[in-house]
Amino acid sequence: MQVPYYIDLLGTFVFALSGALAAYGKLLYRDLFGISFTAFITAIGGGTLRDITLGVHPLAWVADGNYLIVIFLGVLTAVSFRKTLLRLRKTLFLFDSIGIGLYTILGVQKSLSFGVHPLAAIILGMFSAVFGGVIRDTLVNEIPLIFRKEIYATACLAGAIVFVVMNRFGISANISSITGILVIIAIRIVSVQYRISLPRIED
Amino acid sequence: MQVPYYIDLLGTFVFALSGALAAYGKLLYRDLFGISFTAFITAIGGGTLRDITLGVHPLAWVADGNYLIVIFLGVLTAVSFRKTLLRLRKTLFLFDSIGIGLYTILGVQKSLSFGVHPLAAIILGMFSAVFGGVIRDTLVNEIPLIFRKEIYATACLAGAIVFVVMNRFGISANISSITGILVIIAIRIVSVQYRISLPRIED
Amino acid sequence: MQVPYYIDLLGTFVFALSGALAAYGKLLYRDLFGISFTAFITAIGGGTLRDITLGVHPLAWVADGNYLIVIFLGVLTAVSFRKTLLRLRKTLFLFDSIGIGLYTILGVQKSLSFGVHPLAAIILGMFSAVFGGVIRDTLVNEIPLIFRKEIYATACLAGAIVFVVMNRFGISANISSITGILVIIAIRIVSVQYRISLPRIED
Repeated sequence: MQVPYYIDLLGTFVFALSGALAAYGKLLYRDLFGISFTAFITAIGGGTLRDITLGVHPLAWVADGNYLIVIFLGVLTAVSFRKTLLRLRKTLFLFDSIGIGLYTILGVQKSLSFGVHPLAAIILGMFSAVFGGVIRDTLVNEIPLIFRKEIYATACLAGAIVFVVMNRFGISANISSITGILVIIAIRIVSVQYRISLPRIED
Repeated sequence: MQVPYYIDLLGTFVFALSGALAAYGKLLYRDLFGISFTAFITAIGGGTLRDITLGVHPLAWVADGNYLIVIFLGVLTAVSFRKTLLRLRKTLFLFDSIGIGLYTILGVQKSLSFGVHPLAAIILGMFSAVFGGVIRDTLVNEIPLIFRKEIYATACLAGAIVFVVMNRFGISANISSITGILVIIAIRIVSVQYRISLPRIED
Repeated sequence: MQVPYYIDLLGTFVFALSGALAAYGKLLYRDLFGISFTAFITAIGGGTLRDITLGVHPLAWVADGNYLIVIFLGVLTAVSFRKTLLRLRKTLFLFDSIGIGLYTILGVQKSLSFGVHPLAAIILGMFSAVFGGVIRDTLVNEIPLIFRKEIYATACLAGAIVFVVMNRFGISANISSITGILVIIAIRIVSVQYRISLPRIED
């Protein structure tokens, strides 16, 4: 699935917006720099880690200034419409789920196109979707979200595995991608709706 | 502006010195390894991140042992003269401001020379100056300095923007660089003197 | 010393196992994802940082799926046999010391083979052994182990220096490597047995 350029920018916008809203919740970071920085880290953190691991140069946001512009637009949107957006918490959650779904499959595809082993491609795909948030949470001294939310990164792994398996069975890239993305979104919605977490390992 | 080799080493020395002093303030890290490690991370963290993002190899401190020697000298100086240095808090603050000013403009120039988009070059320049401190603060479980100080990283962004704009108007690299560096130092001095911070976003 | 492929996998297994046990101790991470993620970060963190710094592509665990399989085996072992393993605390400590010993010397050798300055090779060797744990501790909001244990990373530096010096004097790579590894293990055992730490810098 060749993700059109503008969808890639849209995903960056959504991640920046959610990162800005997350930063806004912490009084310490509530100036324009703190919010912009957190939005930036969340939006490009995972993709940059994946591209550096794959040895890709130049990075998308380094070569093309539109990514930075889109991130700043996400910040402005978050700050200007924060009351409305916080009321639309469900809409935001859906955007976040679509975002990690899209970026997981994008990440897996990109890794496979570099000849990476499928197991590693699945992990890199998951990282490109969630790791921006991990860096952000670590910087602001919080336990990373992937350790807290009900089935967050595991949803990405599941969707990535579905995509890779369907791909191996010769199913078209488009259908495999869409299925993988839907799996991730569905798992997120169900786990949050019914408050399902991975089972703890008992002592 | 072709920064002479020894100025680059001097900047590394200053950053290592300030990092060692910062580590010294935390009882847990007050052995020679903890102080050296923190000084090292502060001194090369930002530049390494920038070079890896640009795909530069080999890194300066990896190919040339003088950088490591200079870092260790910074550690020895900090430990031997800490009482004197802490009394010279203003001198230290000036060195730190000169350091981030110099490394921001250096970083912007290096990025532009790699054909990076100006917006990204500005951000990479800021990162190469302040991110060593961000990694250091994260490792020792403190809120990164860039979120706390009065106008810290934003000063770097301002100076970087000034440099890029002057450059675009055809002003010589030397004058653009010096102006950018002075802008950063001036903003730091004024914001600390008059305790100016970025305005908080009200609720 | 050409470390056979299976020794490399064994070291990865040991690091993953120790990382999983460390995660198990924190209630928050006691699900299969939290334990796997922490094991993964501990096992590949240091080597990935070293390889990215050296500009090595593709990374071992990205190109070869056996590393990921071995990591997951380490997780399964840790979870299935945790009671037995925790009773064998001394055996675990020995494995960990062997692990950091082996990976320090491996890291130094790899760096030197890339023409890196010996001082930088020593530091990169130390990093490839301990930094996985540093990332892990930072992610779970703990002070990194290298700042807490009695003579941990310094042991690695000592062994790395011994290896490099012996190498410079023309002693065979095999003997230099084994000596360096033994130095690291010995320092770890003695410092833990007699509770020796680096001296604090007094005020």
